[in-house]
Amino acid sequence: MSAIDALTKELSRLPGIGSKTALRLSYHLVKGTKDDAYRLAGAVTRVADEVHPCPICGNYCDGDVCSICSDPSRDGSVICVVEEAFEVGAVERTGRFKGRFHVLGGRLSPLDGVGPERLNIAALEARVSNADPGVEEVILATNASVEGEATAVYLENLLRNRGIRITRLARGIPVGSDLEYVDGTTIAEALAGRQEM
Amino acid sequence: MSAIDALTKELSRLPGIGSKTALRLSYHLVKGTKDDAYRLAGAVTRVADEVHPCPICGNYCDGDVCSICSDPSRDGSVICVVEEAFEVGAVERTGRFKGRFHVLGGRLSPLDGVGPERLNIAALEARVSNADPGVEEVILATNASVEGEATAVYLENLLRNRGIRITRLARGIPVGSDLEYVDGTTIAEALAGRQEM
Repeated sequence: MSAIDALTKELSRLPGIGSKTALRLSYHLVKGTKDDAYRLAGAVTRVADEVHPCPICGNYCDGDVCSICSDPSRDGSVICVVEEAFEVGAVERTGRFKGRFHVLGGRLSPLDGVGPERLNIAALEARVSNADPGVEEVILATNASVEGEATAVYLENLLRNRGIRITRLARGIPVGSDLEYVDGTTIAEALAGRQEM
Repeated sequence: MSAIDALTKELSRLPGIGSKTALRLSYHLVKGTKDDAYRLAGAVTRVADEVHPCPICGNYCDGDVCSICSDPSRDGSVICVVEEAFEVGAVERTGRFKGRFHVLGGRLSPLDGVGPERLNIAALEARVSNADPGVEEVILATNASVEGEATAVYLENLLRNRGIRITRLARGIPVGSDLEYVDGTTIAEALAGRQEM
């Protein structure tokens, strides 16, 4: 296989990159400088070599523990549980959360054969019960999908009666959206969770 | 910079890859196997190391000359001139062209400072006049844009009066399209170039 075909094949294995986009990217890399290509290849290799799950929270990290778990200014009494590592960034970008995270690495999905043992749940239980005696609240920030809700319900059952608050993200109307375009289930949740002004 | 941030930065330099897509791809590579990442990095490095322009036609190739220039079954009397190397593939996929190619490496664009000396034109002239004495036709398959047309006109001026046919791709209605949605300029070209049935 020619070098361009081989690269196109590898690129088209990436999510959201079809064969035409992969070909366009290949030609872009061929047309660019060698240094650009080497830098990209080096960055890919470095990720494969260095990045691993944080032993505490399951987020991806370069060092021994991730930058959030090792940051003494973060509030260890609140743990925000998310499904995937990239969702840590979504919460972090709000700038409104100063606690720590726990990454499950997925969601319960019996149809796909994903049970609790496949997720990073034992470590969460350990953090709540023993290792992290200062935990006061667990925010279940799983997705608002059927699987995400099921995962949250499972975790709520697992963690309740331990003297900690278990919360989830509010359901409601997305900021900036027109009521006209919001689906009925969301409006129903927003009604049920209506807030005093 | 963390390994993930470094990879995201490199990926977001690629055309059509924004920062969110780059982040998603980074996490995909982190979540995948090391072998997948190494294979991608290796393919990128291989392209940088091995791929170079064919000394005859300017198309990208791994070996001494490209697979088309070195194929004795291709008809050397017809040269199809395209702007970019990836356009060779677009013509090849039709399966209707058995001649050879010439890749300009761009189009004339005075506003961007691209004059004839920046394009692979001298080699084309040499192929037509000396090196390839059997050339009988040059098909100017530059894009149907203002710059592409200007490039074709320039080449036509350069190559005429040498006893070879100089042709361009037909302008007309794209196959499968509704007249209603075809722009007026295209319909005008299709009218001017109407064919006997």
